[in-house]
Amino acid sequence: MKIAVVGGTGDCGQGFVKRWAKEHEIIIGSRKADRAEETAKELTSFLKERGVDARIKGMDNGGAIEASDLVVLSIPYDFVESMTSDLKESYTDQIVISPVVPMARVEKHFEYTPPAQGSAALLVKDLLPSSVNLVAAFHTISYAALQDLDRTIGGDVVIVGDDPEAKEVAANLVRIIKDLRPLDGGPLKVAAQVEGLTPLLLNISRLNKVKNAGISVVKS
Amino acid sequence: MKIAVVGGTGDCGQGFVKRWAKEHEIIIGSRKADRAEETAKELTSFLKERGVDARIKGMDNGGAIEASDLVVLSIPYDFVESMTSDLKESYTDQIVISPVVPMARVEKHFEYTPPAQGSAALLVKDLLPSSVNLVAAFHTISYAALQDLDRTIGGDVVIVGDDPEAKEVAANLVRIIKDLRPLDGGPLKVAAQVEGLTPLLLNISRLNKVKNAGISVVKS
Repeated sequence: MKIAVVGGTGDCGQGFVKRWAKEHEIIIGSRKADRAEETAKELTSFLKERGVDARIKGMDNGGAIEASDLVVLSIPYDFVESMTSDLKESYTDQIVISPVVPMARVEKHFEYTPPAQGSAALLVKDLLPSSVNLVAAFHTISYAALQDLDRTIGGDVVIVGDDPEAKEVAANLVRIIKDLRPLDGGPLKVAAQVEGLTPLLLNISRLNKVKNAGISVVKS
Repeated sequence: MKIAVVGGTGDCGQGFVKRWAKEHEIIIGSRKADRAEETAKELTSFLKERGVDARIKGMDNGGAIEASDLVVLSIPYDFVESMTSDLKESYTDQIVISPVVPMARVEKHFEYTPPAQGSAALLVKDLLPSSVNLVAAFHTISYAALQDLDRTIGGDVVIVGDDPEAKEVAANLVRIIKDLRPLDGGPLKVAAQVEGLTPLLLNISRLNKVKNAGISVVKS
């Protein structure tokens, strides 16, 4: 599969690239193609040193999206509306994964601040052609843990979306990352329930001194 | 401590009574005092058979609240507004715990449906005198697991509220229930983040066949 990581030069994006490049062809997207190419080279050598012969390219975001089967929106919420509108023409029928969380820090705690649509995922859905298959996932993964390939990441990744096949593709991207477990969280319209986990975990992490807090669903 | 369980004749309320009656004096509240007294008798004998000498009384909800140090609102969301307004005069300076979750079943999935205030907890705060100390907790505990004293309940209970002492009292009520762990989730204004866990878990439970799903925060 060809995976475009929009915003792939950032910390979170690089983590996804490192975790998925063994199994998939990666196209790092950035506003500037040369920055994307630079990161692609760096990550290719990083993985080569670890014995992974990765296929990683760098392109501008539009080119990356056009060349891909699946797009990960690895960008901060504040850029989602403009970057999704501006790049709309590059999308055809890709699977699009949104890990985006709208939130704000108010004094010492984080609050979930969804747009009028109800969630970042539903905002993205409004902006993209209806031919793409949107899922929301990977909201609660620590970027630091994702980047460190020696680390197994505990916990679950809740996936929401309306297309069962697209959710299964996302679930397989979760399974690649040791020891994460994918969980089906329901349709896209309940994405707020999953996006809201991030500010919750950030608050719990600070107040209870749990480093890189993740979430796990348990039998009780 | 004298704990009033408003709605204490219901499944969830009875679970709290069974778990807390060893350490605390319980006043079961109900609309009708005689129903509350009946449940109090039943639970007293149930616990006596297990060697627990419990002090459990039954009263109408108003009387139960007046006689208590701490009130648990063990009632469905639909009754919260009327029951809190009608019983307002009975409150003085109690700690009040809201485990209430506003949600609706839409087709096969559950959606979080908060009131205009943003959460059930903030609605309750609006209705009660400012002299009470409101916390929100116990949203994700399975009633079935709570009622079965032979069962240790895995997972965490996230507590939100603005008064650190009230939160610590709630945390101690969590610790009584083996093996639950209390976690501070921040101020009352982020209660929606915690209430929203319940429909999330119900959806995950159904879609991934996890019985009585609870939540646990893990290091990643």
